Amino acid sequence: MLGAIEAGGTKFVCAVGDEKGHIVDRIQIPTTVPAETMPKVVEFFNQYPIKAIGVGSFGPIDVNPESAAYGHITSTPKPGWRDYPFVQSLKDAFSVPIGFNTDVNAAALGEVTFGAAKGLDSCLYITVGTGIGAGAIVQGKLLQGLSHPEMGHILVRRHPNDEFRGKCPYHHDCLEGLAAGPAIEERWGAKGDQLVDRMEVWDLEGYYIAQALMQYVLILSPKKIILGGGVMKQKQVFISVYKYLKEFINEYVSLPDLTEYIVGPGLGDNAGITGSLMLAHQAFQEENQR
Amino acid sequence: MLGAIEAGGTKFVCAVGDEKGHIVDRIQIPTTVPAETMPKVVEFFNQYPIKAIGVGSFGPIDVNPESAAYGHITSTPKPGWRDYPFVQSLKDAFSVPIGFNTDVNAAALGEVTFGAAKGLDSCLYITVGTGIGAGAIVQGKLLQGLSHPEMGHILVRRHPNDEFRGKCPYHHDCLEGLAAGPAIEERWGAKGDQLVDRMEVWDLEGYYIAQALMQYVLILSPKKIILGGGVMKQKQVFISVYKYLKEFINEYVSLPDLTEYIVGPGLGDNAGITGSLMLAHQAFQEENQR
Repeated sequence: MLGAIEAGGTKFVCAVGDEKGHIVDRIQIPTTVPAETMPKVVEFFNQYPIKAIGVGSFGPIDVNPESAAYGHITSTPKPGWRDYPFVQSLKDAFSVPIGFNTDVNAAALGEVTFGAAKGLDSCLYITVGTGIGAGAIVQGKLLQGLSHPEMGHILVRRHPNDEFRGKCPYHHDCLEGLAAGPAIEERWGAKGDQLVDRMEVWDLEGYYIAQALMQYVLILSPKKIILGGGVMKQKQVFISVYKYLKEFINEYVSLPDLTEYIVGPGLGDNAGITGSLMLAHQAFQEENQR
Repeated sequence: MLGAIEAGGTKFVCAVGDEKGHIVDRIQIPTTVPAETMPKVVEFFNQYPIKAIGVGSFGPIDVNPESAAYGHITSTPKPGWRDYPFVQSLKDAFSVPIGFNTDVNAAALGEVTFGAAKGLDSCLYITVGTGIGAGAIVQGKLLQGLSHPEMGHILVRRHPNDEFRGKCPYHHDCLEGLAAGPAIEERWGAKGDQLVDRMEVWDLEGYYIAQALMQYVLILSPKKIILGGGVMKQKQVFISVYKYLKEFINEYVSLPDLTEYIVGPGLGDNAGITGSLMLAHQAFQEENQR
């Protein structure tokens, strides 16, 4: 039996299941401070004979196995979690292999294994919600270099009619600053689900997301693009994304039919937790190959 | 003995050497039309007992082994080369394994094997010259997905004082349209080597390249960035790149000392041809593992 944690900034989803993605039991725990949240995590997993745990975590995190800070959440502003040794605290409690990656990389892994990108060796998973983040599978492996990607903060061109300053504390009007949920709410004065009929809201949203996709396509050339997260539940955004991406690319690269190339998550809201199960499976296999 | 072709839009460099990157003989052949250029390529290699050939080619090219157009140059505007079956024509002449990738991916492979990124499993090689292109090594392998990257055409934010329209026939003011050699020449009315003392030229150039690097860093997180090509021989551009990249990133991700992280090619003008030798070596090894 494998354990999985989808560690979000608002809640932790913990689950137990198997390497085929079947989930046997799951709970949600509010993300408060580690001293409160983590004992509940431990209590949950203590009920089961787990042989590995996979964690898809909010970030930024240190995923470099050669780094002294490997397995830590690093510079998050979230009280109590800055420099938190996530992997070590789980190892202390369970003495099993721990897989550790970003929440969005976990979701990409879930989608490439069982979801919308099943059977491919390459995909990009983007979440558009409270923040914007993306994970990628490149040639069958989770994308990693110096660190994990931070694709939500790329620079975009401001729409000529958009005077909203942007909400990113680092870059003001980067992609996340202009297009994540809080930016939509502040720009239009209401939450997304109260703006469903305002076409201009979703047209602008698609304009920014399509710019990001143009950059991702030209740099990574993913075989499938999956758009998830709360904002993407407004399905009208996809229409705008297709329209603007076609305009921006202007036939410079040839892409599959956009409605098949850029899709919602095949696993729905389970992409992250399923991918975290896969991280557990990978960690178990790596440990046993040694 | 291995053969290598660095197939550029202006000239072909052909070389023979070994898997340690030693070059024994080399020639340059003008890139005119295949019926003229290719017989000279064949004549050169016919002098040597080569056991594989690696090609780093101008593009776009088809690098997907499962595609019917694998090994072709595809939609180039260059007369005679559109849909040219590059790999097949070499196989017909030599009956040896042929490695085939983009010129910039070859240069990245050269740099990661013997140059500025030696010993790393990740690097990004960018050329800024007549055009802008980039190749990448990710987790030890040449980056490839649906197709090869086309990083030169990403969108950038126009500098508020820059009114130059841009020269890209597809996107007008994408990175290549604003920052490649021809854009510099048209904007300032002179070629780069006549503008050496005009600080504003290189400051603006660095502004655009730094924006591109911000996107590449956030999306790919390379362990080393190598800037080559004719424009980057103006070393003052590096200073401007460091300045603007620091400003754009604004400490959101932590990077090594920029003067060590972003460097010129360790192999100088030999990155591409050396990488092409490595493509030959890889093709030979793959053939003999079957």
